[in-house]
Amino acid sequence: MDQLNNSHVEPTKVVAVMSGGLDSTVMGYLLRSQGHELHALSFDYGQSHRKELTFAQATAADLGVPWDLVDLRASGLTRFLGGSALTDPDVAIPDGHYAHETMRITVVANRNAIMLAMACSVAASVGAGAVAFAAHSGDHPIYPDCRPEFVQAFQAMEHLAMEGTARLLILAPFAQFTKSVIVEVGHQLGVPFERTWSCYRGRDVHCGRCGTCYERREAFGLAGVTDPTVYASEFVTQAP
Amino acid sequence: MDQLNNSHVEPTKVVAVMSGGLDSTVMGYLLRSQGHELHALSFDYGQSHRKELTFAQATAADLGVPWDLVDLRASGLTRFLGGSALTDPDVAIPDGHYAHETMRITVVANRNAIMLAMACSVAASVGAGAVAFAAHSGDHPIYPDCRPEFVQAFQAMEHLAMEGTARLLILAPFAQFTKSVIVEVGHQLGVPFERTWSCYRGRDVHCGRCGTCYERREAFGLAGVTDPTVYASEFVTQAP
Repeated sequence: MDQLNNSHVEPTKVVAVMSGGLDSTVMGYLLRSQGHELHALSFDYGQSHRKELTFAQATAADLGVPWDLVDLRASGLTRFLGGSALTDPDVAIPDGHYAHETMRITVVANRNAIMLAMACSVAASVGAGAVAFAAHSGDHPIYPDCRPEFVQAFQAMEHLAMEGTARLLILAPFAQFTKSVIVEVGHQLGVPFERTWSCYRGRDVHCGRCGTCYERREAFGLAGVTDPTVYASEFVTQAP
Repeated sequence: MDQLNNSHVEPTKVVAVMSGGLDSTVMGYLLRSQGHELHALSFDYGQSHRKELTFAQATAADLGVPWDLVDLRASGLTRFLGGSALTDPDVAIPDGHYAHETMRITVVANRNAIMLAMACSVAASVGAGAVAFAAHSGDHPIYPDCRPEFVQAFQAMEHLAMEGTARLLILAPFAQFTKSVIVEVGHQLGVPFERTWSCYRGRDVHCGRCGTCYERREAFGLAGVTDPTVYASEFVTQAP
């Protein structure tokens, strides 16, 4: 598990998968504070909240690092990523707590394996020593491809796939931590939280009711950090 | 290793990665002969010999199975897959035997991990129980992502990535066999070899000199099967 805790990783070039959300933005600032050189990478996989990508691009500019977008919309692949509320306009985005069973409809099957595999190719191309993504412990109940055992298996697979070319570390610095810890880390690092986007609905302001809005609000509350986010609706307390 | 030998696999729907080449075409006919239902899938990753894709499409039509193309050319990813003779017009495709050190320039780093991860998403979407690709033992010396240990690691990773969604088998029925065995199998199954394309140069006819042309000719010779391929140049015997 040590390899997932990147505090022991020597400074290197890191391809950071950045969605524009709170977690990956804080990760970018954290990696920079640890002395890594960043190359930001975002993916358009047909998510209805692609608005988040403009936030990823802005954060890369804030950090002064290169940003690349892999846009799969014209590839023909995205229709096979449907059936999820995040990619299929016919599937409604559910309200409520992130860890609820109802949130399973937001799973995009195999999304992280696809994104990380492409990120590894980018890493090999730009001479990076690691790929990082911002999975956290709150993701584990419903997203299997955010769990530490997935990260380890993915890294083992890549070491075989690119033997002789690159031996990349797969970093998931928040894999053992909750989102409230990420908010605390971001607060200490001075991350401009207002320059992050979480809401799955992708409208003018955060809806305040979908799973990721719920989780975002809750995390600021638990961390005791002022939440600068404008939400369209009141905070409704709802046990998981 | 048993799981790589799909003769023990119960008939299921299989997403077959088909390039239009000899190996994956024979694989398609083999899987069908074993009672599997096929869904053919091809990838345009910027290979200069994209001519092969029209052969994949024709073979899917011959087999009467669905065919889908994932076209990554507009995604922004392909520029990171450069540096290989297969994707970079500035890198010359070498002549000579496939197993030569000079053939390393034809490696597209991490290509199979990307293609298989996408194929797994397609499999989950169409309700398939397996993904198949046509790596063979002659690929092992220079392509790490064609080796049985990679296939096993990839399957283990996917079982974790899609836990609760799909538990896919990754089939590589030729992983232990040489290309001449594939020619023999194809001959017995009545595969129309003239409807396959191997040459990395992708011109009007097979060049006869690049690694995959060399290997194709050699395999027909070793198998004692008449080669219907038209080559632009004479067969030059060259020890590996």
